[in-house]
Amino acid sequence: MANNLRETENLQEHLQRVIQLLYEHKLAEGLLPPQPLPEQGLMDGLLHGQSLAELQKLLDELHPADVAHILEVMPLEDRLLIWDLVKAERDGEILLEVSDAVRETLIASMERGEMRAAAEQLDADEIADIAPDLPRDVLEDVFQSLPMEEREKLRAAMSYPEDAVGALMDFDVVTIREDVTLEVVLRYLRRLNELPDQTDLLFVVDRNEYFKGVLPLNRLLVSDPAALVSSVMSKETIVFYPDERAQQAAQAFERYDLVTAAVVNAEGKLVGRVTIDAVMDFIREESASEALSVGGLSQEEDLFAPIWKSLKNRWTWLAINLVTAFVASRVIGLFEDSIEKLVALAALMPIIAGIGGNSGNQTITMIVRALALGQLNGGNARMLISKEIGVSAVNGVVWGAVVGGFAYIIYRNISLSLVMMLAMMLNLLLAALMGVLIPLTLHSLGRDPAAGSSVMITAVTDSGGFFIFLGLATLFLL
Amino acid sequence: MANNLRETENLQEHLQRVIQLLYEHKLAEGLLPPQPLPEQGLMDGLLHGQSLAELQKLLDELHPADVAHILEVMPLEDRLLIWDLVKAERDGEILLEVSDAVRETLIASMERGEMRAAAEQLDADEIADIAPDLPRDVLEDVFQSLPMEEREKLRAAMSYPEDAVGALMDFDVVTIREDVTLEVVLRYLRRLNELPDQTDLLFVVDRNEYFKGVLPLNRLLVSDPAALVSSVMSKETIVFYPDERAQQAAQAFERYDLVTAAVVNAEGKLVGRVTIDAVMDFIREESASEALSVGGLSQEEDLFAPIWKSLKNRWTWLAINLVTAFVASRVIGLFEDSIEKLVALAALMPIIAGIGGNSGNQTITMIVRALALGQLNGGNARMLISKEIGVSAVNGVVWGAVVGGFAYIIYRNISLSLVMMLAMMLNLLLAALMGVLIPLTLHSLGRDPAAGSSVMITAVTDSGGFFIFLGLATLFLL
Repeated sequence: MANNLRETENLQEHLQRVIQLLYEHKLAEGLLPPQPLPEQGLMDGLLHGQSLAELQKLLDELHPADVAHILEVMPLEDRLLIWDLVKAERDGEILLEVSDAVRETLIASMERGEMRAAAEQLDADEIADIAPDLPRDVLEDVFQSLPMEEREKLRAAMSYPEDAVGALMDFDVVTIREDVTLEVVLRYLRRLNELPDQTDLLFVVDRNEYFKGVLPLNRLLVSDPAALVSSVMSKETIVFYPDERAQQAAQAFERYDLVTAAVVNAEGKLVGRVTIDAVMDFIREESASEALSVGGLSQEEDLFAPIWKSLKNRWTWLAINLVTAFVASRVIGLFEDSIEKLVALAALMPIIAGIGGNSGNQTITMIVRALALGQLNGGNARMLISKEIGVSAVNGVVWGAVVGGFAYIIYRNISLSLVMMLAMMLNLLLAALMGVLIPLTLHSLGRDPAAGSSVMITAVTDSGGFFIFLGLATLFLL
Repeated sequence: MANNLRETENLQEHLQRVIQLLYEHKLAEGLLPPQPLPEQGLMDGLLHGQSLAELQKLLDELHPADVAHILEVMPLEDRLLIWDLVKAERDGEILLEVSDAVRETLIASMERGEMRAAAEQLDADEIADIAPDLPRDVLEDVFQSLPMEEREKLRAAMSYPEDAVGALMDFDVVTIREDVTLEVVLRYLRRLNELPDQTDLLFVVDRNEYFKGVLPLNRLLVSDPAALVSSVMSKETIVFYPDERAQQAAQAFERYDLVTAAVVNAEGKLVGRVTIDAVMDFIREESASEALSVGGLSQEEDLFAPIWKSLKNRWTWLAINLVTAFVASRVIGLFEDSIEKLVALAALMPIIAGIGGNSGNQTITMIVRALALGQLNGGNARMLISKEIGVSAVNGVVWGAVVGGFAYIIYRNISLSLVMMLAMMLNLLLAALMGVLIPLTLHSLGRDPAAGSSVMITAVTDSGGFFIFLGLATLFLL
């Protein structure tokens, strides 16, 4: 394998090397108790005190995204040490790459002048991305230092909500006119020295910036240079509006395999473009925040956040869960007399509640996915409810028989196991019904169905399951 | 807004139109009871019986991905009606775009000859994607009908596991030599008539197909045509191996904002390329299957799958859950005497178990994410365990006090509320410890930590919570 090819495993090696150099540095500085470290070359580093210099050299050679990754996996103290070694002119790029939580810790360690310098290395749309983490006065200074046109772009980029196409947009568009030949376009491009990253097409506009279509580079390259742009360009092309939902754009990128696409305003003027890498980042963040909220976390957490920050991130859902647990507890409290008379009820009731919750969460997972993919509409919702109820009816009979059998084996009480079976069936029906209705309702209220649904269904199947089972037992057994 | 621009909202409109045309068709055929439908133009369709013709025309104009979406949201009967209207020469593309579950239903409705024809429209790497759904003999026929070189490619593409780079790879590479000028390259491209989709760079190889580097189109376009490829090409570039994990490639695409990248074999010969659209599909499937498994589903489900198919998809997790519920129930059974003496225990115990499960799932969500992002290594795992235990200790004190207070308000029993508090603290510690250890262990065994972890932590915090609380109560209260 040729030496000049970068292989992806290298990142892990770089990380090991960073950790080792840091260790050597600390050892040399007497920051660590001396320990034997079976590592070749260590003594060299120690003798010459060059670990930091070597570390700096390594960091300089790494891609900003790789430096960002290393910063993210380091405990706070080491992270700031490394951040200090990063060349000031790369600060901006790297701040763009790290996660929000880690960016906060880095910015907190910077002086105002450094923050300004970092921000000024970036394009308007990139400044907008890190703006929420900058102190107000720094942002104001950066804003004042920009040329008028860039100021307008920054203002525009910051005016869109995070989930709008405008927030994904950048302004690196190469525009051409439709009444010139491809030969002219090729000569024009050669004068540019460099094209923006991810450029796979040129935007065709008229003299008033009205968007007319796109000229894919692929087509530019295979067509006759004497042809006019207007005869080669593609007029039927996807465009987005800045205030369109980013989710919509992401779906179009996936569906039509786009690399870049035009963003036009309501009048039809070209205002910017969306690129696939911005879309990928958006998709990653979306699916991350969904996974986090399903898991009961409010937002992405810095792995090495101080304890109190982690607590803040987790308390919302724990508190909500506590309330639903108290309610379930009071439902059981209603039936304390029954439990006193037949203590087996206490041992059996969590089964009803647990299986109901599991089954309800299965239904919800399906519905949430279908909603996210735009597969649900007025026409098929009712059909889906009947199907889910059908599934839960079969499940009720089967699993009801199993849990009834379990109860009989343990307690040798036929009426108890019949009650158990009936309660299981009813709770599964409840789970199916609410498993469809909760996410649909949240969705139609414009709320995110992924997060709240799971907590709500568990609350319903817990309290509902206890009530159904203990209620039936009180009616029929006592 | 110019009429020639495709807007993404259109898909929803198309879908409505499809539904309406289907409805008109069924009405005309007497398949539905006549109902008033306040829709202009309906009578035309009915009078001329042209709904199907119009529907076919609409389908012909749609992008294959859009047809796929429409097929996915239709109930089985309508889906097959629409599938019959799709032009045979588009069958292949559309089969590629639909989800696995829906593809199965479409293929089941096709005759062997149709399947063969559809597969023969596709490239070798695409055939490999739908191969698992084709009957064995059809696949054999398709294989025989391919030219020798394509057969080799198909065999290669099918030989890689789904999560290897080889499975994402396609063979649409444009190769050039390094000892020619850009002028020659430009002339060569013009002779090609068309470049493969997503081409953002050309692959430079020597006469023995050894990979030497890449020439990005962006650089080709801005450089002097008299320059040699060798002086303009990029030698330091990312390459993948066919048996590398696809996950690794996906991370590199995201990190370095790639559009395409070379795949080379162990000797360094170019064997294919990976494109961003294949990577996006892979990422989507990964995050979907994670969401599904966290939600307790084995795999993606066709929304309109027959009930028995849905049942099969859900029974694995329900059965596992049932076993853990039985265990928890028996743990409670151990303490039936205690509950009989102090029935409040029955009402309070689900609180301990529930909050423990929630908190454990929070820890797991964090660890699973960190594992997926490659942020965990030997060095920081111990640090993370201490942090999680710190978080849970604080949580234990705070929430322990809250639940203890709740118990006191309801039952006015100070020792009971102290036991409640202690049990809460211990169960949260257990949740934190297992919340770190379970995913780390699954990961180091090479298993997927996302799915199993959540079920296991809930099992531990349920049974453990009941045991801790009822055990402490038996020791101190009775």
